[in-house]
Amino acid sequence: MAENNSNNHSYENGNSKMATIRKLLQSRQEKVVDTGNKVTVVGVGQVGMATVFSLLTQGVTNNIAMVDMNADKLKGEMMDLQHGSAFLFNANIQAGTDYAITENSQICVIAAGVRQQEGEDRRNLVQRNVEVLKGIVPKLLKYSPNAILLIASNPVDVLTYVTWKISGLPKHRVIGSGTNLDSGRFRYLLSQKLTIAPTSCHAYIIGEHGDSSVPVWSSVNIAGVRLRDLNKDIGLESDDENWKETHAQVVQSAYEVIKLKGYTSWAIGLSLTQIIKAVLTNATSVHAVTTCVQGEHGITDEVFLSLPCVLGRNGVLDVIRQPLTDTERQQVFQSATLMAELQAKIKF
Amino acid sequence: MAENNSNNHSYENGNSKMATIRKLLQSRQEKVVDTGNKVTVVGVGQVGMATVFSLLTQGVTNNIAMVDMNADKLKGEMMDLQHGSAFLFNANIQAGTDYAITENSQICVIAAGVRQQEGEDRRNLVQRNVEVLKGIVPKLLKYSPNAILLIASNPVDVLTYVTWKISGLPKHRVIGSGTNLDSGRFRYLLSQKLTIAPTSCHAYIIGEHGDSSVPVWSSVNIAGVRLRDLNKDIGLESDDENWKETHAQVVQSAYEVIKLKGYTSWAIGLSLTQIIKAVLTNATSVHAVTTCVQGEHGITDEVFLSLPCVLGRNGVLDVIRQPLTDTERQQVFQSATLMAELQAKIKF
Amino acid sequence: MAENNSNNHSYENGNSKMATIRKLLQSRQEKVVDTGNKVTVVGVGQVGMATVFSLLTQGVTNNIAMVDMNADKLKGEMMDLQHGSAFLFNANIQAGTDYAITENSQICVIAAGVRQQEGEDRRNLVQRNVEVLKGIVPKLLKYSPNAILLIASNPVDVLTYVTWKISGLPKHRVIGSGTNLDSGRFRYLLSQKLTIAPTSCHAYIIGEHGDSSVPVWSSVNIAGVRLRDLNKDIGLESDDENWKETHAQVVQSAYEVIKLKGYTSWAIGLSLTQIIKAVLTNATSVHAVTTCVQGEHGITDEVFLSLPCVLGRNGVLDVIRQPLTDTERQQVFQSATLMAELQAKIKF
Amino acid sequence: MAENNSNNHSYENGNSKMATIRKLLQSRQEKVVDTGNKVTVVGVGQVGMATVFSLLTQGVTNNIAMVDMNADKLKGEMMDLQHGSAFLFNANIQAGTDYAITENSQICVIAAGVRQQEGEDRRNLVQRNVEVLKGIVPKLLKYSPNAILLIASNPVDVLTYVTWKISGLPKHRVIGSGTNLDSGRFRYLLSQKLTIAPTSCHAYIIGEHGDSSVPVWSSVNIAGVRLRDLNKDIGLESDDENWKETHAQVVQSAYEVIKLKGYTSWAIGLSLTQIIKAVLTNATSVHAVTTCVQGEHGITDEVFLSLPCVLGRNGVLDVIRQPLTDTERQQVFQSATLMAELQAKIKF
Repeated sequence: MAENNSNNHSYENGNSKMATIRKLLQSRQEKVVDTGNKVTVVGVGQVGMATVFSLLTQGVTNNIAMVDMNADKLKGEMMDLQHGSAFLFNANIQAGTDYAITENSQICVIAAGVRQQEGEDRRNLVQRNVEVLKGIVPKLLKYSPNAILLIASNPVDVLTYVTWKISGLPKHRVIGSGTNLDSGRFRYLLSQKLTIAPTSCHAYIIGEHGDSSVPVWSSVNIAGVRLRDLNKDIGLESDDENWKETHAQVVQSAYEVIKLKGYTSWAIGLSLTQIIKAVLTNATSVHAVTTCVQGEHGITDEVFLSLPCVLGRNGVLDVIRQPLTDTERQQVFQSATLMAELQAKIKF
Repeated sequence: MAENNSNNHSYENGNSKMATIRKLLQSRQEKVVDTGNKVTVVGVGQVGMATVFSLLTQGVTNNIAMVDMNADKLKGEMMDLQHGSAFLFNANIQAGTDYAITENSQICVIAAGVRQQEGEDRRNLVQRNVEVLKGIVPKLLKYSPNAILLIASNPVDVLTYVTWKISGLPKHRVIGSGTNLDSGRFRYLLSQKLTIAPTSCHAYIIGEHGDSSVPVWSSVNIAGVRLRDLNKDIGLESDDENWKETHAQVVQSAYEVIKLKGYTSWAIGLSLTQIIKAVLTNATSVHAVTTCVQGEHGITDEVFLSLPCVLGRNGVLDVIRQPLTDTERQQVFQSATLMAELQAKIKF
Repeated sequence: MAENNSNNHSYENGNSKMATIRKLLQSRQEKVVDTGNKVTVVGVGQVGMATVFSLLTQGVTNNIAMVDMNADKLKGEMMDLQHGSAFLFNANIQAGTDYAITENSQICVIAAGVRQQEGEDRRNLVQRNVEVLKGIVPKLLKYSPNAILLIASNPVDVLTYVTWKISGLPKHRVIGSGTNLDSGRFRYLLSQKLTIAPTSCHAYIIGEHGDSSVPVWSSVNIAGVRLRDLNKDIGLESDDENWKETHAQVVQSAYEVIKLKGYTSWAIGLSLTQIIKAVLTNATSVHAVTTCVQGEHGITDEVFLSLPCVLGRNGVLDVIRQPLTDTERQQVFQSATLMAELQAKIKF
Repeated sequence: MAENNSNNHSYENGNSKMATIRKLLQSRQEKVVDTGNKVTVVGVGQVGMATVFSLLTQGVTNNIAMVDMNADKLKGEMMDLQHGSAFLFNANIQAGTDYAITENSQICVIAAGVRQQEGEDRRNLVQRNVEVLKGIVPKLLKYSPNAILLIASNPVDVLTYVTWKISGLPKHRVIGSGTNLDSGRFRYLLSQKLTIAPTSCHAYIIGEHGDSSVPVWSSVNIAGVRLRDLNKDIGLESDDENWKETHAQVVQSAYEVIKLKGYTSWAIGLSLTQIIKAVLTNATSVHAVTTCVQGEHGITDEVFLSLPCVLGRNGVLDVIRQPLTDTERQQVFQSATLMAELQAKIKF
């Protein structure tokens, strides 16, 4: 039977029968546990926990539900966070193997899934994750039928498509974390070369998250100054300043961090936090996230890849139509074709 | 006719017919202006505006509606805030003389009302404000039937009673700013004497906001150490260290600030922000605010005064039952009696 | 004699002779009032106070010194802020007519100066402000010889030049608030047309703050997409979508707000806070501020105007070399020429 | 040879020779990496990393140096954080096995040390950690002679004493994390019973961190209302409401979290962040931390245990003299005696 490690924040717990409390409090109104900004995180591994901790410490929400199949780990993480709540803003932190605790969430983050096994091909990995997501998505929607779904599990682009298919939701309500992190790494590395803050280095990586990602060198700019106007070869093979190495470093980043510390956590947690904040605050700010790209850049298949999107309370509100160079468009188009092939093989 | 200085944030404004925007954006979903944490402030004088600015800069909400009868001043304040939104978190700031813009607020702050005229007695002042509140409260509830009402207009205690009567709401949903500010001033002045941070100086002023307020010297403590255990006369006439002067300074504070700068704004704005944050985040934190005190400290009349209250999404959740000394209780009781007399004369 | 409304935060005030405090505290170390992030604001009018309140509520610093010639107003503002310190992060707020309280500031904001009188020409206004600044700048540097100076008084560009001349400091340490606010207003107005967050609307206004400011339409972009690539006439007379009206609105903004509410405060306070935060946190972020523009855009005179600058602990670290269209460059150049003429007439 | 995984934030890296950058930037001033609020964390295990992430996400500092002996893990953590800097406030994050990178820190946190091996007695464990600390403390002080030292390694009380002895610093500059976390857990558990926010549940645990910690039931209060005044047996064996179980749960907390998730991280990271913030902002706020308790509660030995302390820029500014019940005092005294015995056996 599913055990529910709730935080006992149910205020009807008979405490009021305790004389000390009756003497202290003159109750006026039944207490409820709700703040209207509830976030559910499925999966309490390194990514899920970095996200939860970042959400709480940045004050993006103070109402979190965590779900996982590992009841012990889940309870340990919940307790550890709750013990810190006196140092935070009185957060309400629930955890349980039963999805009932996720009720009425505004946004649900899926950071769970199976990993690639040695020798396993991608198709098989995706198929195994289809089964995992079938066990998650309907339960989330049962308790939060109006939630936005945010997928962080890898391979993120195809799993965003899978989640959308399983969910039956309109496309704008299913978002993948996509290349928001790749773009953040790109900006950081550019900031180091330019000695300018990453938040002032404007650059996007689009397409598929990971090895085949596409850096949009043609629009990299500082204060609206396109670097390509200063160096017509920037990012290309022909560039004798070798800026293309910066994108190579972005691609290598995840592998290197995993080799050095065993996993990635902080940067992806911060990237997810930024997306969640944009949704909860209805920010209409622009972020590179996985969405359906059919109709963009000549793509006719119903595939999911990252493009700059306007995010708000209802999920993806607009896709920004970036003019790309021929090379950039071809790279995105090729990812779309491969994605369509992969999708065609999935059994739902 | 009432003019409505809305911020034109209605996204159906025909802009999409502009070719430039059609080329830039591939729309996925109609945009709405809602974040679930909407705050309305009625009255854009010094108190109202300090509150709005504090709410926005502290990130307590990014969704504000402002109402006032002075359409020019209102539009000027709205524009000045909107011009700063690029430096904030993409706030949605609306203003208008028509209450329609306040729709769906979680909490409505009333910082409007008429001031005492020279020679006017208190009863007359209250009666004139009854008429003002009759023009505000029903309109607020028409558009936000589930909102919490927070009264900041003076005399705050009796006007909280008046608002409650006009509103027809359950008592826990009508809160007065009360002695939360007096308590804050008390803590600041104690912190200066003790050379300890005001947030670590635990002290409450209760009863009526202003001249007759009651400092609860019997429970003033640092880290749980009651100062009265160290000095049995602290706060009393008999105290040769003259700590009672600290309360006298609190009472003088408002008069002195008004004499020096013409009005008070920052401290009351911060006090209101703290109360609003406690409600919006369902914090269950304790604050001295105006509530119905019938049944407490021997009071039998249905009067409103400040006591330490547990605040959350539903307003006043509990009243903390503070044991008082005889003198403290008498002072609160006397305020209640005077308040009952004043109330009896109000015509609704 | 100059009166000093200090906040009595001098911890050597003999309190320790009070028995109650001796019983409570076992002193280990003398207390000092210093946090390393001290900000001085000269002038406690609407602009100065909005800046101070924004700095405190956003947590940019908790150590503020305020100076003004009006001792009463100054003391009133100080007390009002101090009374709110229990709701903030234990801020240290000092105020006085004597500059001694500004000692050891990291950055000093000058929001003081005389205003244009009816019929007064600009040259006369500047000359009167030269005298005012001569009474301020040397005193600031006496107590904070390593501080950055940030000028907010109008006309801001020429007064930044004046401050630099009086100060004898290297150019990078004297900054004017310049067109950072104009750029913020521009972004807000663009955000309303585009239905995208102002923080995602990238646009700069450069040159002279106010009527002659230059909107750099050629580089306005969303996610690196230049609007001029979608509409070749955007911002020009020939544009049938009339985007140039947006800049006209920016220019009208200040006049309209002043007409409606009597002054501007919130937006300029937020703009200054952004610049101060960039300096204190050594952010290396890019902002349009007044700096010496000699050598840029063909300008040979030693004049001060706004260009996008990289800001950090040492002030202006770099100027971003924006390629401009001929029209844009001509407009900036013309401002520089007029500025040089104005400067030539100043008597120091 | 010690490798230094610095973040290459040395701005003198020859980039300025790159033509693209020369075209973009007109340099005004050499860039430096300093913000005046630098924090060093020694040890990048779960505790150290939760602390660093919490410091960055809460904006307590944007200038961090991390030191560890495991160069790979260290580099991995540094890269993962740097990749997230585009989502934060342009943080400067350095890491290295060489202490040179810690230069000019305001506070240094020691979260490194060896753990108890199976069958190892406490004396041996302490002695092994003496050797570890001898390798850390002098190097920290070499590069930051004015820093505050904050010890988080266990057994924290005796290791704070050891650090003090090795450092040769005045006592107020060496702080142990002590029972600040125990107190936080206590407040959380009380908040659950009382249905009041943990930040409004005022309660201290003092003495030795861990099993022998002393809950000061006599001063537990809500809004100054002592629970013992409502229930004279609260926390005692004789209490039929069994509140003493709450302290038992605090003691069990660490064991249970470790059993469930393998280690504790979030709550201790938040506790350390609170202490660091109090020091950096010179808050003069009160926290239960490890300090020299000689002279308090009848203790004559020069031992280190937790008592409520006033913290600021210079470390421990005051110890709060809490009146204790006989039982409470005896418990603290007994810890002090055992601590003195343990200390006597340490070889430096």
